[in-house]
Amino acid sequence: MHVNTPWDMKVNRRILEMEYAVRGPIPQRAAELKQQGRRIIPCNLGNPQALGQQPISFYREVLSLVEHPVRIERERRLKTLFDRHALDGLEKDDFHSDYVLDLSERYLERMETGMGAYSDSSGPQFIREAVAGYIDRRDGADDVRLPRSDPGQVFITNGASEAVRYVIDLLIDDDSDGIMIPIPQYPLYSAAIRRCGGAQVDYYLDEKSGWAMDRDLLESALEGARERGVAVKAIVVINPGNPTGAVLDEETVGEVIAFAGENGLAIIADEVYQENVYDADAEFVSFARVLGQSDVPLFSVHSTSKGFYGECGHRGGYLEIRNAPRVGSTGLSFTDLVLKQASVNICSNTVGQLMMYLLVSPPPENAEPYRRFTIERRKILEDLHGKAAMIRAGFDHMDGVSCFGRTGAMYLFPRLDRLPDGKNDFDYCMGLLEETGLVTVNGAGFGQMPGTSHLRIAFLPPRDVIEEVLPMWIEFHNAYVN
Amino acid sequence: MHVNTPWDMKVNRRILEMEYAVRGPIPQRAAELKQQGRRIIPCNLGNPQALGQQPISFYREVLSLVEHPVRIERERRLKTLFDRHALDGLEKDDFHSDYVLDLSERYLERMETGMGAYSDSSGPQFIREAVAGYIDRRDGADDVRLPRSDPGQVFITNGASEAVRYVIDLLIDDDSDGIMIPIPQYPLYSAAIRRCGGAQVDYYLDEKSGWAMDRDLLESALEGARERGVAVKAIVVINPGNPTGAVLDEETVGEVIAFAGENGLAIIADEVYQENVYDADAEFVSFARVLGQSDVPLFSVHSTSKGFYGECGHRGGYLEIRNAPRVGSTGLSFTDLVLKQASVNICSNTVGQLMMYLLVSPPPENAEPYRRFTIERRKILEDLHGKAAMIRAGFDHMDGVSCFGRTGAMYLFPRLDRLPDGKNDFDYCMGLLEETGLVTVNGAGFGQMPGTSHLRIAFLPPRDVIEEVLPMWIEFHNAYVN
Repeated sequence: MHVNTPWDMKVNRRILEMEYAVRGPIPQRAAELKQQGRRIIPCNLGNPQALGQQPISFYREVLSLVEHPVRIERERRLKTLFDRHALDGLEKDDFHSDYVLDLSERYLERMETGMGAYSDSSGPQFIREAVAGYIDRRDGADDVRLPRSDPGQVFITNGASEAVRYVIDLLIDDDSDGIMIPIPQYPLYSAAIRRCGGAQVDYYLDEKSGWAMDRDLLESALEGARERGVAVKAIVVINPGNPTGAVLDEETVGEVIAFAGENGLAIIADEVYQENVYDADAEFVSFARVLGQSDVPLFSVHSTSKGFYGECGHRGGYLEIRNAPRVGSTGLSFTDLVLKQASVNICSNTVGQLMMYLLVSPPPENAEPYRRFTIERRKILEDLHGKAAMIRAGFDHMDGVSCFGRTGAMYLFPRLDRLPDGKNDFDYCMGLLEETGLVTVNGAGFGQMPGTSHLRIAFLPPRDVIEEVLPMWIEFHNAYVN
Repeated sequence: MHVNTPWDMKVNRRILEMEYAVRGPIPQRAAELKQQGRRIIPCNLGNPQALGQQPISFYREVLSLVEHPVRIERERRLKTLFDRHALDGLEKDDFHSDYVLDLSERYLERMETGMGAYSDSSGPQFIREAVAGYIDRRDGADDVRLPRSDPGQVFITNGASEAVRYVIDLLIDDDSDGIMIPIPQYPLYSAAIRRCGGAQVDYYLDEKSGWAMDRDLLESALEGARERGVAVKAIVVINPGNPTGAVLDEETVGEVIAFAGENGLAIIADEVYQENVYDADAEFVSFARVLGQSDVPLFSVHSTSKGFYGECGHRGGYLEIRNAPRVGSTGLSFTDLVLKQASVNICSNTVGQLMMYLLVSPPPENAEPYRRFTIERRKILEDLHGKAAMIRAGFDHMDGVSCFGRTGAMYLFPRLDRLPDGKNDFDYCMGLLEETGLVTVNGAGFGQMPGTSHLRIAFLPPRDVIEEVLPMWIEFHNAYVN
């Protein structure tokens, strides 16, 4: 529609070259089909509420009240009337608990200027303190004598994506600066590096060992990059893995830290799936916890979009920095320069900030919302685990499909070993979409070992939808590959 | 606190060099003073709710309901009880109107996946349609036979800042690419250009003519840049002006379009203060309206943070593109590449999207919330106008202070003609802060004609605060300069 303009302008070639398959041609085709009235099941994104996951009530109750504070007092009056049996047809659950009302009031007091004002650029101090407290509790900082998380090194961001961009933008000065990323990876990383004009340094994960990290593969990737003249600045680790679902154990995390330390690399730890560990014998171990007293710089990100919270649309995230490097003779640290970037953006959105505060401040056991909160949380996580198992079981009926590793994060990344001649995983995913309405992302969108083919599917649709669509997928698959 | 780390890393020099005075050393000093218990009056930012402006009730009612939809049905039941006189001590105003309840329900239906899911990267289609409709109504598109606004060229963004960054990031390929910006300017522009490594091409506004744009000054700035080898891609116009408050008339807007067209420049029109025009004989005229059938590329941005809405913390904004240029032989347009950038960011926050929807969808005259909405809007705008007049009147009592031009936007940008030897406007603003608690930004933060000194003050504090602090300012000023 624009071809008729006489205006032709040169653009930033780095944006032109950037790719982001998660919202690429396959989802675009899905949008067209939807417009035509086809049923579409969007499993291309970790977007649980788009597939029917209900929000945690506790979060939304607080949000609803702090956005319209005049209601808090009214709710108290209504509760009094209810207690006097003056409200026909309403039930106790129709009212907010005192805990929620008090929390909302206290939150607004601490926000000082409400939800409609710009906050401090790094986020309100009390929220950064709450995040630091959460990190210390999560890692058992007192028990294992960890350095405590410093609220001055915490930034509340518009989702984890913004946090990652701050760090990568800062690390890349010119095209000789590189960042190591896993293959397969979440394509935010390749896109962010491309956009800054930096060098992407791939290291492979070992699929057959459940997508494990391998010291030899790290060393050879680093060595190869250095031979090409790349100054490698940092290594990205996604744990639990996206798209792989792999969960790193303490030993592996320690090895990565040692590797980074020996080679002068900072660590970018994408830990947004820290709650999405399902197997009984697997446990999330944070980089901060294993880092201990080490001086390796660590940039760790988290998000309100994943876990059991699934509040993607509200775009809440945090970045925690440990051992921020100095910046030459400027007297500045990396943290100062992240703050400068955040300042130009003024601040993250206040609802994302609230969501992050609530994520790190769950109701305590003796509080009224605790029971319901716990039931909702357990149901979501159990549901995710069950749905992943259903889809995995489906793979057994598909010829030449293998899915390595544990179930973590929100994705399965099966390998397609029997594609027809001349067809690749993009063709397969496009065919799957046309046939079944399932939107997935082909392996090339994340990177994969040459000669292999994969797809990523988010295991988020409701069970009945999976039950209905899985046989269609199996049928499509076996017809396609045979 | 970081000087003890052995880690020293090279960083992106463009971020190192970037400046953003609106959140620079003066506000940082203010934060320290506040920590010490001093009263601080933050007039460094256009952040109305931080200074006591109340949110528009209509917006918050809808927000509160869509975030906790189970309440919508409960509210209907409560209203029935109220109508049956079964609710002691509550009043009609304690309940949402049917209009608000219906609107909230309809909004959620159109959102399909609620507030907690990622939306389309450019924002939900129905919101982009509502924005396009607003633009057409605002500009009288039917009356003056304008091309209609195209929802496919509208992006809902995290505030206008994000929209501006998308455009500038795309326009700058290397350091020979330049963008013309007014001096004085809002430092988002200089920071965004610096961050991309582009060339900032200053054009001066004519202070004594009320900060008017002047064709000769535009020509000479462009010519100078071209002589230096800069490929100038676009011109930024802020209307109404920030920090100047100047409001451009139709003739001037037409001259800028002609200048851009003759010189192959795109126009970036920062129109976030379009509702902040106070003088009876001044009127906001949009670039889109004057553009008409011209083929000059136009990038226009708006925000939920300014106007009478003042919803800064919710980070809502839009970008509307007209005449998107082609991108060489790629078959792509600029719009495709803005969409790619938005895709990597996944989507803007859903509450900012809602705020933008409400901004462009005010209650109609026959709807229940109309009266209250209109009263609140009028009060805020009258209040702003009155407060600007109070501060302007104060300047008459300050030696060597002149404030040119109309009152627009949320700022006054007076000139300080009598600073003591060896003192500049930064020293003055720092002194003013220490003495009175008033946080302002010195003129150098925005750029100014060499040899002149200014400050920018947001005219947002409550009247009683202005009444109290203005005599202190006058006293400080006259002591400082004499």
